[in-house]
Amino acid sequence: MTETFNALFAPASVAVIGASDNPNKVGGRPIHYLRQFGYKGEVYPVNPGRDTIQGYRAYPTLDAIGKTPDAVVIAVSGDATLEQVRLCAEAGVKAAVIMASGFAETGEAGRQRQQQLVDVANAGGMRLVGPNAQGTANFASGAVLNFSTMFMEVAPQDGPIAIISQSGAASVMPYALLRQAGFGVRYLVATGNDADLDACAMTCAVAEDPTVRLILVYLESMSDPAALARAAALARSRGASIVAIKAGNSQRGARAAASHTGALVGNDAAIDAFLARHGIWRAGDIGELVRAVPLYLQNRTPGQGRTVVMSHSGAVGVMAADLAERHDLPLTELQPETLDRLGAILPEFGTANNPLDMTAALMGHGDMFPRVLDALGADPQADMVMVGIPVAGPGYDVEALARDAAAFCDRLGKPLVASAPQLSVREVFVRHGVPTFVTEADAIAALAQYAAHARLDAVAEDPTPPAAQPLPGHGLQDEARSLSLLAEAGVPVVPYRFCASASEAVAAFTALGGGPVVVKGCAAEVPHKSEHGLVRLRLSDAPSVAQATEDCLATLRALGVDAPRVVVAPMVKGRHEFALGVSVDPVFGPLVMIGEGGTLLELRKDIVTLLAPFNVAQAKAACARLRLAPLFDGYRDIPALDLDALASAAVALGNWALRHRGALKSVDINPMMVMAAGEGALAVDAVVELHGA
Amino acid sequence: MTETFNALFAPASVAVIGASDNPNKVGGRPIHYLRQFGYKGEVYPVNPGRDTIQGYRAYPTLDAIGKTPDAVVIAVSGDATLEQVRLCAEAGVKAAVIMASGFAETGEAGRQRQQQLVDVANAGGMRLVGPNAQGTANFASGAVLNFSTMFMEVAPQDGPIAIISQSGAASVMPYALLRQAGFGVRYLVATGNDADLDACAMTCAVAEDPTVRLILVYLESMSDPAALARAAALARSRGASIVAIKAGNSQRGARAAASHTGALVGNDAAIDAFLARHGIWRAGDIGELVRAVPLYLQNRTPGQGRTVVMSHSGAVGVMAADLAERHDLPLTELQPETLDRLGAILPEFGTANNPLDMTAALMGHGDMFPRVLDALGADPQADMVMVGIPVAGPGYDVEALARDAAAFCDRLGKPLVASAPQLSVREVFVRHGVPTFVTEADAIAALAQYAAHARLDAVAEDPTPPAAQPLPGHGLQDEARSLSLLAEAGVPVVPYRFCASASEAVAAFTALGGGPVVVKGCAAEVPHKSEHGLVRLRLSDAPSVAQATEDCLATLRALGVDAPRVVVAPMVKGRHEFALGVSVDPVFGPLVMIGEGGTLLELRKDIVTLLAPFNVAQAKAACARLRLAPLFDGYRDIPALDLDALASAAVALGNWALRHRGALKSVDINPMMVMAAGEGALAVDAVVELHGA
Repeated sequence: MTETFNALFAPASVAVIGASDNPNKVGGRPIHYLRQFGYKGEVYPVNPGRDTIQGYRAYPTLDAIGKTPDAVVIAVSGDATLEQVRLCAEAGVKAAVIMASGFAETGEAGRQRQQQLVDVANAGGMRLVGPNAQGTANFASGAVLNFSTMFMEVAPQDGPIAIISQSGAASVMPYALLRQAGFGVRYLVATGNDADLDACAMTCAVAEDPTVRLILVYLESMSDPAALARAAALARSRGASIVAIKAGNSQRGARAAASHTGALVGNDAAIDAFLARHGIWRAGDIGELVRAVPLYLQNRTPGQGRTVVMSHSGAVGVMAADLAERHDLPLTELQPETLDRLGAILPEFGTANNPLDMTAALMGHGDMFPRVLDALGADPQADMVMVGIPVAGPGYDVEALARDAAAFCDRLGKPLVASAPQLSVREVFVRHGVPTFVTEADAIAALAQYAAHARLDAVAEDPTPPAAQPLPGHGLQDEARSLSLLAEAGVPVVPYRFCASASEAVAAFTALGGGPVVVKGCAAEVPHKSEHGLVRLRLSDAPSVAQATEDCLATLRALGVDAPRVVVAPMVKGRHEFALGVSVDPVFGPLVMIGEGGTLLELRKDIVTLLAPFNVAQAKAACARLRLAPLFDGYRDIPALDLDALASAAVALGNWALRHRGALKSVDINPMMVMAAGEGALAVDAVVELHGA
Repeated sequence: MTETFNALFAPASVAVIGASDNPNKVGGRPIHYLRQFGYKGEVYPVNPGRDTIQGYRAYPTLDAIGKTPDAVVIAVSGDATLEQVRLCAEAGVKAAVIMASGFAETGEAGRQRQQQLVDVANAGGMRLVGPNAQGTANFASGAVLNFSTMFMEVAPQDGPIAIISQSGAASVMPYALLRQAGFGVRYLVATGNDADLDACAMTCAVAEDPTVRLILVYLESMSDPAALARAAALARSRGASIVAIKAGNSQRGARAAASHTGALVGNDAAIDAFLARHGIWRAGDIGELVRAVPLYLQNRTPGQGRTVVMSHSGAVGVMAADLAERHDLPLTELQPETLDRLGAILPEFGTANNPLDMTAALMGHGDMFPRVLDALGADPQADMVMVGIPVAGPGYDVEALARDAAAFCDRLGKPLVASAPQLSVREVFVRHGVPTFVTEADAIAALAQYAAHARLDAVAEDPTPPAAQPLPGHGLQDEARSLSLLAEAGVPVVPYRFCASASEAVAAFTALGGGPVVVKGCAAEVPHKSEHGLVRLRLSDAPSVAQATEDCLATLRALGVDAPRVVVAPMVKGRHEFALGVSVDPVFGPLVMIGEGGTLLELRKDIVTLLAPFNVAQAKAACARLRLAPLFDGYRDIPALDLDALASAAVALGNWALRHRGALKSVDINPMMVMAAGEGALAVDAVVELHGA
């Protein structure tokens, strides 16, 4: 694989098939860029109609070159592409970039044509980028096999950033923002249709370059999560970071179809969980993708993210405090010793609180700022610093402020950022290497992201899932079978009896101890029992049980159920109704949902999701994010709940779902009754759905 | 009042007391700015030590000038300020800007000194800005009575924007962002301590200027809401807009103290409700304050905000659709006729959907863009347009794109914005007057704000509240008294009896019809009844009622209640438990909360708030924002609920609270049982708290 990527990113020679003398044509751009951006290898334009192209000797065919280039750009039309791929593969070319469109993005026939490209290439040992790809670029080697117009206008410069995108536009938008802000970008790859070498594989490849500190990724589909997980592990092992956009999370159809627990979490929750598990920060848009770049490149440890805000304006402090709360960024509680030191430095202060207001005293007291920074630096609870400079000009020594801020960073290794609306002020801070933002909002958001990203509980490596095991049956399972499957899975379920007649039900009532029971009509075809009056609660004597059973069986018969049954189970009164669900994502596997239960689950949407497998500690940490989380510690006259039992049930459910991921479609346990601490949790009603009709 | 503001914003003459020859001193800056920014009136520096100051003739005293200046800047120290205020007031000066600090912001003694300033000034008919004020500026007249350093670095230019701020820094930060983006600002006022003429009054003053299209306000305290409401009405009557930051919403203390319904909504919800009621958009930070400025200045009607996104990149469309959903901005469903027209223009398209992907065909087809715009312009469901230009350069006629976009706006009057990461592209669109943003995220957020701001249901004028009426009693009221007050207010309450003995309770049980009742211990001192076992449910016979009553009375006696009572009431089974609450804000009056009830109210926090008075339609619109709103239309096997009854009860509660706003502290009705549609709603439990111990 390394050989392939070397062929793309550091080829000894590049041929361009469909080469053009016009640098503004797809077949002309790469040649123009190879020359302009300092590529040192051989360039072979292939075009039967010309002797020279853009000053290079041109060849009528690949064959005519007489040597095999490492990489080829195929810039001919879609129809002519397959033949050129065949010629390249036969010649022993290692990698080709296919720029033509008209393949999988046009439908099934195009998809088949695309598969032919891959088959022909791979048969010859050649790997493909594309088709429909804007191409690859390594601005360190000048190997720019890319036709984007962007580099005509926004000049590249090598740097520690890589951009990997399925979309051409989404590759050059962050590039433009970064380059205009002065950041260097080494790799820029737009993979297009991802037929062979996809965006995930490309992310893996650039993660191997020790120069790369930050990889920005744009995906519309998650073609190879395992490769992305490997890339994340590799980047993390080097202290490099990945920030990714996964776009297309607004498809309303996916939500509208949701009618039960499992479906509610949707695919997007799986992506969230997958990215978080692998320590990849998910950005919501291009602005967020690049916002914290200077902090990543500064590469300081954010500690627990406890932040000090300092400014010479009270308003900046007030707004920064508002913003910090909005972004869950904790503001430091300064130690008494620190407050004493600050009090001595800032004599005008009644109290030297965080946010620190240095007032206009900042002007004309050149030593105040570094002394304040020293005092903060000595505080073990001050992890990060934001300096707000709302205004500067005559009387403000901006150069000294920026120098002191940069020196503070270097000495103590704590992240420090500045915000300033004036371009002239920002330029000075940026020149001193301080991450600098236009507004407090951007500065606080960047700090919050940087600290939260570091806290992502990334797995050490991609866990190898257990072998998939089958499950007998298909489609919706009735309640009895569903509860029985869950009991096998290790989820505690209510004791129940499965009865075909009133007499069986009465016997079950007696066997269960004679206490109040529930009788529920049980048929896979009728999952929403309460809507059909098939749930009869608090039955305390045999005649009631018999009558309820007769009623339910009759109703089921009327609904067309051939062999109707009821479930008889003791009434269980939990302290609160929760719900557990599973939705098996075809790409990411089982996603487990934990949330408040009851019929209003989908309205209240107080849920958290985890990708299986996970452990009890992770499940409990997720539960702590529920709005109802205070219930677990006891709330008002409700005693503490058995969070351990709920979390353990979720873990068991996740492990079981993972084992049966091929057969299982979804699980919906609602309610999952949770008792007081130490008293357990019980699945009271459940529907398991398997694949197939 | 107009005379006062004329004196500040268009004075015939200005004196500066404490004038300095150094333009970088507080007493030198205004003189420097008056000259530099073209002020045409007389400038009188007052300084006993110099003959001339910055080229102007200087006077030893105000008196020595021989004429009374319209406005005075008082730039002497805090200690010397009162005497100068006195001299100015006696001389008949109309308005003075006090720059010195050391007044109310330092504590009670300073507050008293500040009040002296106001008293002395007002006694002579003079109005004050400040103290601790950076000052006022009118860049149209050059009357810059302001010492901010910002104008030394970022040159002013007149324009249709006013900035009013209590903070100096927060006045110049948006100014810097706007000026650097090329927008002109006419007024910039930083009012400081707001002792006399406050930020709200200043907003009123600038709202009278017909040139002003947009007023940006920064507040940390809401000193005079009525004046802000007048300013909003005035601005609205002219089609001008107000966007405001109210900072300081993160004070955790206010929340932590919240222990019941009324307090939960907090002051910040009152501010939200107040601003929305007056059609003022609330921004969260300085970036948001200025973000949609170009749309406000473009001044097109946003209609229903249904937006078309067009780009030559599919990724831009995908991300814009994601962002639109995040911001509740509806994407247009294009009419079949529009799709047909687009299909003819863009032959390569399978379907011409929204977002529209013009693909690379945009290049080299100069007429495609205007024809697409024409087709969209003809669609009555396309209210606004976003054009994303992720990349441009050779082959792209950016000039033509921008010209066509601007022409579209002019012809159809629909808002159109562009986004482009390349500065060179943005410059062209800005030059053509198109509101232009760096990212899709900013463009979509600005469109969403602009459309939502126009939808704010602003009141026609500030409603005059009814005369405040007293309420007998003080402190927490017991349940019986609380329910009785609410019944008088017009809120439907459960029928109940107030009983001092078991025999009275049994008689009540019989009188209430003999059906199941609840017996509740009733004492103002014990508001949280269930925590003391004082709520006994589902009592169906006289002995149970008697026993429960004895138990409750004994418990209350043990808790130190002198004359214990119980409330006996029928068991009411509503379809769902809601809650109503009131918290009387000292500034904004009664804030009514409607939400899901039950003991978990404060965890679930599914609540909406309204400032009283409001009508049933407004209450219903607010209820539609609850997560549980689908319940009102019927959900699963729950029938539609009586939303009218809930909304009417909320209206009655709000009106009653408004009448008694001086006496009332809070109301907490939980649960407010809501029945099926047509069957009403009933307050089942309530606590009213009046002022006083």
